[in-house]
Amino acid sequence: MRFSLRPQDDTFYKFFTDAAQNIVKGTAILAELAEPEADVQSVSERLVEVEHANDEITHELYNKINSTFVTPLDREDMYALGSQLDDVMDHIEAAGNLVYLYGLSELPAPPREMVELLNVLVAQAAITVQAMPKLKGMDASLRDYWIECNRLENDGDRAYRMLLVRLFSGEYEALTVLKLKEVADELEKACDAFEHVANTVETISVKES
Amino acid sequence: MRFSLRPQDDTFYKFFTDAAQNIVKGTAILAELAEPEADVQSVSERLVEVEHANDEITHELYNKINSTFVTPLDREDMYALGSQLDDVMDHIEAAGNLVYLYGLSELPAPPREMVELLNVLVAQAAITVQAMPKLKGMDASLRDYWIECNRLENDGDRAYRMLLVRLFSGEYEALTVLKLKEVADELEKACDAFEHVANTVETISVKES
Amino acid sequence: MRFSLRPQDDTFYKFFTDAAQNIVKGTAILAELAEPEADVQSVSERLVEVEHANDEITHELYNKINSTFVTPLDREDMYALGSQLDDVMDHIEAAGNLVYLYGLSELPAPPREMVELLNVLVAQAAITVQAMPKLKGMDASLRDYWIECNRLENDGDRAYRMLLVRLFSGEYEALTVLKLKEVADELEKACDAFEHVANTVETISVKES
Repeated sequence: MRFSLRPQDDTFYKFFTDAAQNIVKGTAILAELAEPEADVQSVSERLVEVEHANDEITHELYNKINSTFVTPLDREDMYALGSQLDDVMDHIEAAGNLVYLYGLSELPAPPREMVELLNVLVAQAAITVQAMPKLKGMDASLRDYWIECNRLENDGDRAYRMLLVRLFSGEYEALTVLKLKEVADELEKACDAFEHVANTVETISVKES
Repeated sequence: MRFSLRPQDDTFYKFFTDAAQNIVKGTAILAELAEPEADVQSVSERLVEVEHANDEITHELYNKINSTFVTPLDREDMYALGSQLDDVMDHIEAAGNLVYLYGLSELPAPPREMVELLNVLVAQAAITVQAMPKLKGMDASLRDYWIECNRLENDGDRAYRMLLVRLFSGEYEALTVLKLKEVADELEKACDAFEHVANTVETISVKES
Repeated sequence: MRFSLRPQDDTFYKFFTDAAQNIVKGTAILAELAEPEADVQSVSERLVEVEHANDEITHELYNKINSTFVTPLDREDMYALGSQLDDVMDHIEAAGNLVYLYGLSELPAPPREMVELLNVLVAQAAITVQAMPKLKGMDASLRDYWIECNRLENDGDRAYRMLLVRLFSGEYEALTVLKLKEVADELEKACDAFEHVANTVETISVKES
């Protein structure tokens, strides 16, 4: 356990953990899309709720940062972490909403590479929620987290590239390709956004160690 | 009126107001595209002029920041605000140019959701030009500005999503969809860029209050 | 030659020059795609190697920054420069990889505007590799570099816009358009990334002069 001259107000760390727990819920809901006969409308509506909950957490975090004189971590790092966790949730919600709006539930199943991308997001959420409580005390195992999160992002990148290869292969008609690509883009951005969270955790760790 | 230890050189604030006035001109020209029989070539050419005028304002602002020892606001915030106002204008110019280059004037009218996006931009420009002169003195009403600008960005986001739903509905042929989507993307980025301006104004206000 | 109170550890500057030399190699390999009968698979494989070499340079640079007490330039500027040079290489590698994955080598030749974009990248790489060694001593001729790099980015932007006009003209079938557009997007991002490098060099020069 690291010694710090700054007051260790636990509520700050709690915001990050709460946001990450919300994101775990979000990725679990989104992953239902990989199941046959998924209720796409319900997925989209529940994601909107989870996303609103995240907006509130982020808002409260910002208020807390603004009204606190000495913060346990650098102000700009906490802003960055809060807004990056928010970005993850925004892209997850957007992906679910587009599947619903575009009527993509008429497809028999999402392309295999899209399911791979969904699995990457579930895995990233699982390690992120485990990492957040370790920010307090700067547990040395955080290093494993950001390395693994970057590795998962590489997996996601590869799945995304191969997904586009399939979409452009002639298997789907042009408008369906465009719809699926919009969804894929949101999934890939969520995957990237998880990496940004991990990079900020790395920055904080390097500063504080 | 706030008391400040920094010299309140008015020319800095004037740059932001000038840029915002230019953007009002730009959005008004772009909004002509919603009219039947719009002269698309003229719209594109006039937007290039307005965009060049903005480039010069941004350039002069940067020179002024670089050659001033104590600036009335933090240097990096003024850079950010200048470049974000510049971004707004770049996306507005790009949207007009693409409508011309792609020959989209052959369509009877732009899709309704695209007109909604244009209206959001006009509204964002109107409140931005009113907000800029209030930076000097950090008028408390700036808070209303950034809340409203974010609300408008949400409207724009919704209009953009519904625009894509229409574009992918089968109403247009594939290449026309791709052209309209490029234009829509620029409009959406302009809408986002207005929000970035508002976020920077918020950051400045929080610091200075 | 500028006088500095900071230790002028040459290894920092060497990283930037090494990365730029790698990028020169990368753009040369990518430019082979403009030749008839280009070996697309070999282009993609060699780009992966060059990109891995760049990753290692960036990684060593970061380690060096983290383990050095007083750095010759501001820490955040060196991070920015390293990661921006890395971004250039990532987009170059991605462009080459997509041409291979999408089977675009079946086209008789890339569109003329895409070849123009490739030439812009080759030119940007050539001036970037000349500029990097001048960071030490803040040679006044660096100014010419960033102005020229921005000018080239404008050329690239114009080529990109005209490339999309051609892609959407009806000359290619819809799926081929989508494939070529993904490649064009990566080339345009590489062109932008070169400009970000130049902007960071400008920032450093303004600070240090």
